[in-house]
Amino acid sequence: MAQTTFEEISAADFFYRNRDIAGFTNPSRAIFAAIRELVENSLDAAESLKIPPDVYVRLSYEGEASAETQIYKLRVEDNGMGIQPRHIPSAFGQILFGSKYKLKQQRGTFGLGGKMAILYGQITTHQAATITSSTGLAKIYMYKLMIDIQRNRPIILDRKVLINREQWRGTVVEFSLEGDYFRAMPRLLEYFKQTAMVNPYANLTFVDPKGRLYKFTRVTKEMPEPPKETKPHPYGVDVELLQRLIQLTSCKNLLEFLRVHFHRVGDITARKFLEFSNLSPSKNPKRLSHEEIVRLMHNLKKFKDFLPPDASCLSPLGEELLKAGIVKELRPEFVAVHQRKPATYAGHPFVVETGIAYGGEVPRRGSFILYRFANRIPLLYDEASDVSMRVITAMNWRRYKVMPDMPISIVVHICSTKVPYKTVGKEFIADRPEVRKEIANGLREVARQIQHFLSRREHVDRERKRLGVFSKYLPKIAQFSAQLAGKEKPPDIEKLLKSVRQFGEEEA
Amino acid sequence: MAQTTFEEISAADFFYRNRDIAGFTNPSRAIFAAIRELVENSLDAAESLKIPPDVYVRLSYEGEASAETQIYKLRVEDNGMGIQPRHIPSAFGQILFGSKYKLKQQRGTFGLGGKMAILYGQITTHQAATITSSTGLAKIYMYKLMIDIQRNRPIILDRKVLINREQWRGTVVEFSLEGDYFRAMPRLLEYFKQTAMVNPYANLTFVDPKGRLYKFTRVTKEMPEPPKETKPHPYGVDVELLQRLIQLTSCKNLLEFLRVHFHRVGDITARKFLEFSNLSPSKNPKRLSHEEIVRLMHNLKKFKDFLPPDASCLSPLGEELLKAGIVKELRPEFVAVHQRKPATYAGHPFVVETGIAYGGEVPRRGSFILYRFANRIPLLYDEASDVSMRVITAMNWRRYKVMPDMPISIVVHICSTKVPYKTVGKEFIADRPEVRKEIANGLREVARQIQHFLSRREHVDRERKRLGVFSKYLPKIAQFSAQLAGKEKPPDIEKLLKSVRQFGEEEA
Repeated sequence: MAQTTFEEISAADFFYRNRDIAGFTNPSRAIFAAIRELVENSLDAAESLKIPPDVYVRLSYEGEASAETQIYKLRVEDNGMGIQPRHIPSAFGQILFGSKYKLKQQRGTFGLGGKMAILYGQITTHQAATITSSTGLAKIYMYKLMIDIQRNRPIILDRKVLINREQWRGTVVEFSLEGDYFRAMPRLLEYFKQTAMVNPYANLTFVDPKGRLYKFTRVTKEMPEPPKETKPHPYGVDVELLQRLIQLTSCKNLLEFLRVHFHRVGDITARKFLEFSNLSPSKNPKRLSHEEIVRLMHNLKKFKDFLPPDASCLSPLGEELLKAGIVKELRPEFVAVHQRKPATYAGHPFVVETGIAYGGEVPRRGSFILYRFANRIPLLYDEASDVSMRVITAMNWRRYKVMPDMPISIVVHICSTKVPYKTVGKEFIADRPEVRKEIANGLREVARQIQHFLSRREHVDRERKRLGVFSKYLPKIAQFSAQLAGKEKPPDIEKLLKSVRQFGEEEA
Repeated sequence: MAQTTFEEISAADFFYRNRDIAGFTNPSRAIFAAIRELVENSLDAAESLKIPPDVYVRLSYEGEASAETQIYKLRVEDNGMGIQPRHIPSAFGQILFGSKYKLKQQRGTFGLGGKMAILYGQITTHQAATITSSTGLAKIYMYKLMIDIQRNRPIILDRKVLINREQWRGTVVEFSLEGDYFRAMPRLLEYFKQTAMVNPYANLTFVDPKGRLYKFTRVTKEMPEPPKETKPHPYGVDVELLQRLIQLTSCKNLLEFLRVHFHRVGDITARKFLEFSNLSPSKNPKRLSHEEIVRLMHNLKKFKDFLPPDASCLSPLGEELLKAGIVKELRPEFVAVHQRKPATYAGHPFVVETGIAYGGEVPRRGSFILYRFANRIPLLYDEASDVSMRVITAMNWRRYKVMPDMPISIVVHICSTKVPYKTVGKEFIADRPEVRKEIANGLREVARQIQHFLSRREHVDRERKRLGVFSKYLPKIAQFSAQLAGKEKPPDIEKLLKSVRQFGEEEA
C-alpha cells in the first residue's frame, strides 16, 4: 500500500511557498508590492486619527544580488497613530495577525501585506527588520525582528526603549530586500502619482536609489470623515457568522439580538422580520437549533423590508474631489463625474464613483485609458481581468457618440468595507454581479454627460459653420442689394453680424 | 490616545473571510470551484498509484435557497489510493493540512481546494460533510465532520468502521452547498470536456441535477509515468530553504550536503561549485554563519555550471497524446504540436507544450480561441490575465501568415512541480519571464509549422488556378493549331491534361 505523508504548514509558510498570490511574483513586482503595502498601511494609520498623512519612503542601494537584481534598503516612515509596544512584534512578524479584520473601509484588508514585505526581505537577504514606533506618549519603542516562518511567530532579536522628547508619533519600518528597482520604476512612480490624485490631503515623499526626490505635496488639509466600523448587514450573513454572533451575544432575546448586532435593524424592522420568519421576539438566540439557524439565515436573505446599508461607514471621494483630482492630473477639455448611491453585495455596503475625461491633454490611444481605484488606492496590474474593464468592453459606446479613437480616460473608484479583490496582492476586483451593475450604471451616467457634450459640440460646430457662411456672404448680398436698388451705400450689417458672432462665441 | 485592537485569525478564518481569492466568488463560481477541486483531488489520488482514474460526480437538487440559488448535494467518488483513517478528519477539515506540499507535479498545489469546498458548503447550508475512504485493506472508514473555522480544526460528529468485503479502494466525499447550477452549467460541461481531452485515460461521469448523464469514457488505459517527488534545484533556493535544509540534514560536510539535497548536483559539480564559492568541501553545514548562508544562496544563483533540471519529475502529455486530444475534440483541417525542452523558473522545472489547430470544425471567431492547461487541468476563467494570452497578443502573427479572422485554436499546456498561479483559485498563470519565454518559443514553433502549411496551400491554390487556366485553354489552342495546320483532328491532349490534373490532386 502506498503511504501518503501529510503535514500541516503555518500561514506564514503557506504565503512563503506561494508568493505569487500575494503579489511578490518577481524582483520587480516585489519592490512594487513591498512599497505599496507599507505606504497603504501608513495612510490608514494616519487617517484613522484624522491626521493628514505624511509618508516618507526611501529606497537605497546596498549591493548586487544577481546579474539582474540588487539588494535595497527600504525605509517607510509615517505620522500615523503608532502601534502599542506589545503588539509590534506580532503586527510585523506574524501573518494573519492584525487590526484589519473589521467591517470598516480601509486600504489593507488581508492583514498580510506589510508582513509579506518583511518576509520577502528576510528570505532574500536574511536580515532583520527594524520597527520603530510611538503612539505619541513618553516612549519610543524599537524592535529588531525576524519571522519564524515554520511556526509563524516573530523572533525578537533586539528591543530598545527611548525617551520620546519631541512627542513624536508614528511608525518607521526599515528592512532590506532583493529587487529590480529599474524595472519597477515606471509603475512605482505611476503608483505615487495616482495615490496623490485620490489622497489630495497627503504628503508623499519618495527618494529613489539614485537619490532622486519625488514629492507629492498636499493641496488641502481637509480630510474626509474617517470611516467607522460597522455591523454586518442582514443580507450578507452566513451560518458561520450567525453562530459566532449567537456565541458572543449577551442579548437575551431575538428582538434585541437583531437590533444590537445588525446594520440598520431597528425595533420595527426586527419585529416585522420575526413575524415574517415565524419566530418569537422573546426567544433566546442561544436556544436556536441548527435547523433554526439555517432557516434564520435564509429568511434574513429573503426578507424584503430591511433598509439598504447606509454609507456612513464609507468614505468615498465625493464628486468635487474626484473632479478636482482628474482636472489636476489629466487636464482634459471636458470632465464628468458621478457618485452612485450606496449599494450592497453579500451584505457589504459599497459606493461606486465614476468619471470620464475628454480631450485637452488626455492622450489618444486607440482605446480608452482606465484608472482604477479601490478605497483610495490605485490598482495598476491585471487590468484586463478587472470588473471595470469588463463593463467598459461590454458597453455600447457608439450609442453615446463615443468612439474608441477619441482621447478619453475613464476613472472608476469603488469604496467598500470589503473590496472583493480577486487576489491577495489586490491587483483587481472580482466580477460580482452587484458591483458590475453599479459600475455599469455609473459609467452610463457619465457617458450620457459626455454624449450631451459631444452632441452640443457637434451642434455648435455645425452652427458655427453655418454662421461662417452667413457672415461671409452677408456683406456681398448687402452690396448686391444696394446696387440692385440703385443706392450707393449698402445697408449697415455690422450690428447683425456682431450679434451673430456673439451668439457663436457664447455657444463655444 | 486611540487604541487599536489586534487579533489573530486562523487560516480557515482567513479563507472564510476571503472566499473570492479561493475562487468561491458567487453561487455559480462556487459550484464550479467545488466540483473542480474535488475532481482534481480524485485524479491525483488515482494517478499517484498509476491506476486509470474513475471519477463519478453527482449533483442533486435539495431545495430552494433564495430567488436565484438552490441547495445541492454534491457527491464525488473515486478509485484513488484512499486516505489513511487517522488523516481523514484533518485532510478534509483543516486548512493548510495536506499531502500536497511537495516538489512534485500534481493538480492540487495549495492543499486548500477540497477544504474550501467543504467550508463553503458548511457556511451556506450548515450541514456536515461525509467522507468515506479505504486504502483497499480490510476496513472502510466513514467520518461525518464539520470545520471549526475559528480554530481551524475538524469537528468529528460521527465515525463508522465497516468491513471492506469487496476490497474497495477510493474516497467518497459528500456534502451540501448553496449554488447556482444553471448559470455554472456551460463552464462546468466545458471543464469536463477539456479535462477528458488532456486525461484520455480517465473515465469521468457527471450526473446533473436534472438527472442528465454526461459520460467521458477513456480511450486508452496507457498512463504517463506518475510524477516523482524531486529535490530543489540550486537556482531556486532562498535563505529560508537553505536554513531548513541545514537544520534537517544529517550530512557532516558541505560536499555531501550539496549532493544529497539538491537536484542534479553530483560530486564533480559540487566540488566545482565549492571552489567557485571559496568554501571548503569538508566544512560542516551546521557551522555556517548567517552571512555565509546568504553568500551561499547568492552563489548558488550565480554559478553557471549546474545542470538544468531534468524532466523525470514532470509528466507532460507528449506530442502524440496532445495531437490526438486536439484532433479528437476540435477536428481541425491542420494541427501542429510542439513540446519544449524542460526549463526552470526560480528553480522549479517546467515543460511547455503548445498546439495550433486550423480549419475543419474550428470556428472562426475574429480572434483565436485559446485552450489553457496546467498540470493536465483546464483553466477556464480570467483568460485575459494569463501569461499565454499576453504572449499571443504580443506576437506578430502576420509574419506567420496568420490573420485574426482565420479559424484558429491555440493550446498551451504547462507542467511543473509548481505552477505559478496568480490566484488560489488556480484561474490563471503569473507572468514569470522564464515561463513567458518558453510559451513564446513554443508558439513560434507551431506558428512556423502553420505558416509552412498556409504557404504551401497558397502555392497549391495558385498552382491549381494556373492549371485550371491551362486545362481550359489547351483544347482551344489544340483546335486552333489543328485548323491552322489544315488538319481535321486536333492533337490528343488528354494525356497531358490528365497528368496535369493528377499533379493538382496530389498537391491537395
